[in-house]
Amino acid sequence: MLKFDVVVIGGSAAGIPAAQTARRHYPDKSVLLIRKEAQVLIPCGIPYIFGSIGSCQADLIPDATLQKSGIELLVDEVVGIDPAQRVVTTAGGEQISYERLVLALGSLPIVPRIPGVAQENIFAVRKDVRYIEQMLATLNQASDLVIVGCGFIGVELAEEIRRNRQIKITIVEMLRHCLELTYDVEFSVKAEEVLQAEGIEILGSEKVLAFEGNGKVEGVRLSSGRVLKADAVILGIGAAANTELAVKAGLQLGPTGGIQVDRYMQTSAEGIFACGDCAEKVSFFDGRPSRLKLASIATMEARVAGANLFAPRRSNLGVIGVYSTILGKTAFAAAGLTEKMAREANYHVMVGEAEGPNRHPGCMPGAENLKVKLVFDAATGVILGGQVSGAMSAGELINAISACIHQRMTADDIAIFQTGTHPGLTASPIAYQLVNAAEMAIANGRKAQ
Amino acid sequence: MLKFDVVVIGGSAAGIPAAQTARRHYPDKSVLLIRKEAQVLIPCGIPYIFGSIGSCQADLIPDATLQKSGIELLVDEVVGIDPAQRVVTTAGGEQISYERLVLALGSLPIVPRIPGVAQENIFAVRKDVRYIEQMLATLNQASDLVIVGCGFIGVELAEEIRRNRQIKITIVEMLRHCLELTYDVEFSVKAEEVLQAEGIEILGSEKVLAFEGNGKVEGVRLSSGRVLKADAVILGIGAAANTELAVKAGLQLGPTGGIQVDRYMQTSAEGIFACGDCAEKVSFFDGRPSRLKLASIATMEARVAGANLFAPRRSNLGVIGVYSTILGKTAFAAAGLTEKMAREANYHVMVGEAEGPNRHPGCMPGAENLKVKLVFDAATGVILGGQVSGAMSAGELINAISACIHQRMTADDIAIFQTGTHPGLTASPIAYQLVNAAEMAIANGRKAQ
Repeated sequence: MLKFDVVVIGGSAAGIPAAQTARRHYPDKSVLLIRKEAQVLIPCGIPYIFGSIGSCQADLIPDATLQKSGIELLVDEVVGIDPAQRVVTTAGGEQISYERLVLALGSLPIVPRIPGVAQENIFAVRKDVRYIEQMLATLNQASDLVIVGCGFIGVELAEEIRRNRQIKITIVEMLRHCLELTYDVEFSVKAEEVLQAEGIEILGSEKVLAFEGNGKVEGVRLSSGRVLKADAVILGIGAAANTELAVKAGLQLGPTGGIQVDRYMQTSAEGIFACGDCAEKVSFFDGRPSRLKLASIATMEARVAGANLFAPRRSNLGVIGVYSTILGKTAFAAAGLTEKMAREANYHVMVGEAEGPNRHPGCMPGAENLKVKLVFDAATGVILGGQVSGAMSAGELINAISACIHQRMTADDIAIFQTGTHPGLTASPIAYQLVNAAEMAIANGRKAQ
Repeated sequence: MLKFDVVVIGGSAAGIPAAQTARRHYPDKSVLLIRKEAQVLIPCGIPYIFGSIGSCQADLIPDATLQKSGIELLVDEVVGIDPAQRVVTTAGGEQISYERLVLALGSLPIVPRIPGVAQENIFAVRKDVRYIEQMLATLNQASDLVIVGCGFIGVELAEEIRRNRQIKITIVEMLRHCLELTYDVEFSVKAEEVLQAEGIEILGSEKVLAFEGNGKVEGVRLSSGRVLKADAVILGIGAAANTELAVKAGLQLGPTGGIQVDRYMQTSAEGIFACGDCAEKVSFFDGRPSRLKLASIATMEARVAGANLFAPRRSNLGVIGVYSTILGKTAFAAAGLTEKMAREANYHVMVGEAEGPNRHPGCMPGAENLKVKLVFDAATGVILGGQVSGAMSAGELINAISACIHQRMTADDIAIFQTGTHPGLTASPIAYQLVNAAEMAIANGRKAQ
């Protein structure tokens, strides 16, 4: 029987940093990472395989990362965990004992129970090289694609598939607007305009009633009565925690169906931790169950789990939800609660916006528009969320906003926080959007009093 | 006699936001801004007038900003303040009474007492349209330019002047390396390599002994004995607070020669506030006098002063110092203390670095290298500073680091702070430089124990 101090099951955005953090915090401990995939896709890169990147082989996480950190790798499938004996068993017949086990099992794309969903050329987006290659081959032949779900995966896939192909793309969404769970409506509308300008059709407030065809998909029947022609369908409606192994081992699940964990990422079983998409989550804002699943959350949780394996060192404050993407030439980013979400949660909100070029003066080469919207709790002044659209600098600006949220900064704190500004990199200090959006929220809050 | 509730003297990076903040916080108060310049240059844009922007007229702060905020403008020079009567007098003969006065008088470039410094074609960089136009005309004719001082103004001017001109440029610096007051040596060396590759010569550890010539500069004699040919010289060795008016009015000055202010930006005279380059500053880190002068600091202080005019609402935590620039195609940014500065201040430091592409996978279009170095106080884990070089996203990333410093986040806080990551905008969540630099600092700290 093999013996390791730490065994991590899963080799993606949670498993790798969990193993790395274990090695960094406990350099004397041996760490084994077990994963079933021969090659691991960069999960957020998957949409880009269909356009900008071009192939699965260019979107792989290199194993060198593990070797450099002194992590052993076993490519095999774990089929059983014995929490009492602290032993895992693999499909390949290995028995491996552990002191601490980390479950980084990820999630599986949700396949809705809609008539005809099991037909050929209907794809959920599985993080699997062979599966994605098959999708790629099908899409290269397809002429009419329907994407179900207008969240991040849906819009990113639509754009990238469109990039090199003559293919009609329609996205069907149950909610009124695209990306509605992440952005306020004015940002969603802007995103839709970008997609529509590229010839991508978006049908909001529509449900799929059935997939038509004879073993191979031919059409998509909608709640409005409309039937869309389709020789390929992609389901982008979310993912569910992969918990089969945990359930078999007797671990408790949480209210959203993830593996139950505490703030230290400990499961209900002694010595077993979980992190990433497979683990239950709570909101940073109200501690209630959250269904958010993001690679960046997985990595954060892995860094908590890995550090806590042999001593309580870090605690998970709950998920904020920080997103960014590019549609056309416009970046869209968001962190925390939208105005709509905050109002629905019964906050009395204070909102501020600032918009202008991300260079100064505006004639500097490369100047693009950048808009920031911030949402605060009017009772305390504490920031609840932010949304950004425009220039590519949104990608890091949203992380400045995330730091503000993480630290529960007030509008006043943000209004006088010290920024670095430069003609070729940002707005002027007078017009700097993040600070000015906070100032406008304060001014708007005063007017409302 | 004119009467205003609030009078602001100065119309640049401190004066404008001071007036705006006054209007936002006290919408019933009348605000007058007095400045002597007919047109106001965007201060950080000045180097770019010589290259990317091309003219002073393209680098102006529009007066529309004032009108939109309901701020009255008077172009005139204030020549006297009577703090007892609360009246200011202008060169144009106006007498204006105020309830609150804000001094946003800026700074003047330092002209060192070196023999021959008063000759023609030797320029300090004054924020004045006519002066800059004269500089521009001279440089368009010059063949040998010597820049004294290899700080931000020196390196930015060198690059921009070089952009459209056949001109030999030599920068002379007393310190060993360029930008040495802002960056650790490895970043300075990288910056020097960029400049040298563009044909700009940098002479470190050199003092200017004299400027040679007969009324018009012809050469620069250095401490090493070398004499540089020069038909134009730019002095970029810093600026001194403009305090003449304040001194005449009997206001106290601070230890570095700025107008003495408290944390609320109040001067020694009742009802008079000061902010920006003219005001005395203290360090965020140790409360000691600081000579930092930056437009972004001026703006922050203006937002403190403006909010406090009729009630104590905000306090100034002291200057962090957040910088960014572009040299060649590389961005350089810094916030807070460098490793060297922290060691000199007797911190026991903990340092971490992370470097890698700012896209994931690295083959994504537009991928560039991005390096982050973070410096922590090992005793408390609190962040003291950060430096970034590489991709343009450094411009906003440094502001995320500034938020971390402002909130005194620990390495552990940063290691598990939630980031938004995207293939086209940032590193992967596993490789995200800001978080990984914090992780490495913790690991390095552990090894040192």
